[in-house]
Amino acid sequence: MEEAVWKATDVKEKVCEWRSPEQLKDLLDLELREGGEAHPQILQRCRDAIRYSVKTGHPLFFNQLYAGMDPYSLVGRFITEAINPSLYTYEVAPVFLLTEEAVLQKMIEIIGWQEGGDGIFSPGGSVSNMYAVNVARYHHCPDVKVLGLSALPRLVMFTSQECHYSVAKAAAFLGIGTNNVYVIPSDKRGKMIPAEFEKQVQRAKDEGALPFMVNATAGTTVLGAFDPLEEIADICERHNLWMHVDVTNSVAWNPHKMLMAGLQCCAFMVRDKTNLLQRCHSAQASYLFQQDKFYDVSYDTGDKSIQCSRKPDAFKFWLMWKAIGTKGLEERVDRALAMARYLAEEIKKRDGFRLVMEPEYTNVCFWYIPPSLRDMADGPEFWRNVHVAPVVKERMMKKGSMMVGYQPHGDKANFFRQIIISPQVSREDMDFLLDQIHSLGMDL
Amino acid sequence: MEEAVWKATDVKEKVCEWRSPEQLKDLLDLELREGGEAHPQILQRCRDAIRYSVKTGHPLFFNQLYAGMDPYSLVGRFITEAINPSLYTYEVAPVFLLTEEAVLQKMIEIIGWQEGGDGIFSPGGSVSNMYAVNVARYHHCPDVKVLGLSALPRLVMFTSQECHYSVAKAAAFLGIGTNNVYVIPSDKRGKMIPAEFEKQVQRAKDEGALPFMVNATAGTTVLGAFDPLEEIADICERHNLWMHVDVTNSVAWNPHKMLMAGLQCCAFMVRDKTNLLQRCHSAQASYLFQQDKFYDVSYDTGDKSIQCSRKPDAFKFWLMWKAIGTKGLEERVDRALAMARYLAEEIKKRDGFRLVMEPEYTNVCFWYIPPSLRDMADGPEFWRNVHVAPVVKERMMKKGSMMVGYQPHGDKANFFRQIIISPQVSREDMDFLLDQIHSLGMDL
Repeated sequence: MEEAVWKATDVKEKVCEWRSPEQLKDLLDLELREGGEAHPQILQRCRDAIRYSVKTGHPLFFNQLYAGMDPYSLVGRFITEAINPSLYTYEVAPVFLLTEEAVLQKMIEIIGWQEGGDGIFSPGGSVSNMYAVNVARYHHCPDVKVLGLSALPRLVMFTSQECHYSVAKAAAFLGIGTNNVYVIPSDKRGKMIPAEFEKQVQRAKDEGALPFMVNATAGTTVLGAFDPLEEIADICERHNLWMHVDVTNSVAWNPHKMLMAGLQCCAFMVRDKTNLLQRCHSAQASYLFQQDKFYDVSYDTGDKSIQCSRKPDAFKFWLMWKAIGTKGLEERVDRALAMARYLAEEIKKRDGFRLVMEPEYTNVCFWYIPPSLRDMADGPEFWRNVHVAPVVKERMMKKGSMMVGYQPHGDKANFFRQIIISPQVSREDMDFLLDQIHSLGMDL
Repeated sequence: MEEAVWKATDVKEKVCEWRSPEQLKDLLDLELREGGEAHPQILQRCRDAIRYSVKTGHPLFFNQLYAGMDPYSLVGRFITEAINPSLYTYEVAPVFLLTEEAVLQKMIEIIGWQEGGDGIFSPGGSVSNMYAVNVARYHHCPDVKVLGLSALPRLVMFTSQECHYSVAKAAAFLGIGTNNVYVIPSDKRGKMIPAEFEKQVQRAKDEGALPFMVNATAGTTVLGAFDPLEEIADICERHNLWMHVDVTNSVAWNPHKMLMAGLQCCAFMVRDKTNLLQRCHSAQASYLFQQDKFYDVSYDTGDKSIQCSRKPDAFKFWLMWKAIGTKGLEERVDRALAMARYLAEEIKKRDGFRLVMEPEYTNVCFWYIPPSLRDMADGPEFWRNVHVAPVVKERMMKKGSMMVGYQPHGDKANFFRQIIISPQVSREDMDFLLDQIHSLGMDL
């Protein structure tokens, strides 16, 4: 607890204690042997594992789309790890199935589906997106479950060029094929262009294919852009397409990101009251979902899932929500947005920093321009040289002072993507971030 | 810790504190409100959640295919929940990616693949089976990733009638269709009949379909039967089919079951050295899997997965393995097998108990015959009345004394399926189980 909780979230400690894979293999003594080890040695292994792990709850960890540490969620997770439940049936997981249901109902209420809906927690947003694709095609062609895709016309789905890579993974995994994901161009801010979307729907129809769904993105991975959901919804209505993410048909929502529920905590929700999840995914195992039980078996929700064993990911979120209330969750999001705003303004004020674009969400994308380049004219030569992020990142990791991601994007040279996910960051942390990048890169 | 660990594994405490869904909803006060709650109230909620949860680590929990509690694994899980890593890249999860690799290598060695292989931990055996189907079809037709199934002949896969229901779920989810899972009859012991398998392969070929894989089962869900792996392998070789589960092409192995690593802990492994997992599942997100990093990016194994965020499920298993050694793991399995043997012998000795068949594994399937039926002649009338398991189960749950599953199977009336998964059970526990069933059902 001292090492993995208190020190790991202390801003005065390092974010990571970098070792190369070869060094770390030696330090950890990974080999699994015939005999066991004594307790003092196992304790030392625990300490080492913590020491060389990246502290994702540290205030200066900005590397991914999750961060921070919530004490209520953590207690919830300790409880569920000790209890070790699996959410197939009410009989083995009564508390965790009911808390999942309560959380889903509240989330559906917040989405705004007046008439309710259905949902399930899944092991990650990628799997939620797979659920969306599967439910959408089942909705269009219920025969697919039994007959498979070989009995259907070619199915086509749509997403923007800025979408998460899980959409391509889903298309490959579900047998649709990545070529049948028609990619819609986005505008400069990273938003899907509705007119282009409708053009692609028409193209699919002209080709004799069956367009069945669009994946819209509310907060893209790199730029944090929001697709124009209402215009996309209008097009979906005209062409009878399932719309995922927005408020039309289904939503993937990951409370393990900005709400700090801890990995993994991902809900997939459908605006449906016809038991679509069950019809689409059930296999009716008689040894598990017996119908002659002594209680109301509609509480045995496990057959809605593509999994068999399933972790109680909703409980920690429920406990945290109980502890801080809807208002507390809202304040977290507001605070993260305010910090992103502050950082963007600071970047504009400082020499040597340049915003890629005004942030729409909490993704603040920016270049660091070392002094040696500041007088160079803007042009191909300049942009080739701006490629300093990988070196700054290497120095940052080896120092262990903080962690922030970078990537190229389209024709844009490598830039930093600072995501303010956790409300547990301060203005001082934002200032430190910029100071640190400057001090690590000023000689480049 | 007192409630969720010590009391939850104490044989003198109850396995469950049964409440109906309606009662439990009231007791838990599930509603999520605008404001938060004070700490004493949150603590009470934690106590309630533990109290009304089923204690799956209790020695008398036999309801599912997992049980028991390992203290090393539990410590490993507390550490990973506190550290909250996600296994995409070495940079964010160095310790957990290396321990996963070490565990996979050792498991592959135990499987017996001399030339090595590859693998990944997945969120459950069902997802591992989906990986198997996807990798098998990609191996046969690499175009499927890009073109989808609509560009291919109808694919057909095979499995026995006793297989896990996740095979049907996988076929539906991956777009193959459950009709294209050709179900092979099993013999009386629950083992796939090889001659029937080869007949079905021929049938698929005669229909012009493309047979591509078989799912063999090493320990079926209900009877614990092992398919004849070597004979199935020979048929696969003759017809160029991918074989999953056995030692030919791929294996799904869940250490969260008999090895007590805690849910979830599931490895999917392929006998392949051509980076098949990566080729089959990668999407190459440039913001995550940058190729210009300062370290060897072959350690960034996240793109082998269908997930993006992924929990460090191997670490707890690694820590436990370190602590008790291969020998300790082996002893656990031996002990569970010995207990199953003991129980089967006891059943044969006692009046009113009848084995469904001699157990091959740790699934001991048996009927309880109440005194009122013991003099009745064996026949349809007798078997209609033997249907007492649901009532015994209801009484058992309400008493909270223990938990064991039941189901009908083929033409056999409801029987108890006692699975000895945990080595933390004693002969006294086995005796108690039989005594308890008799005392709960003797008046029926």
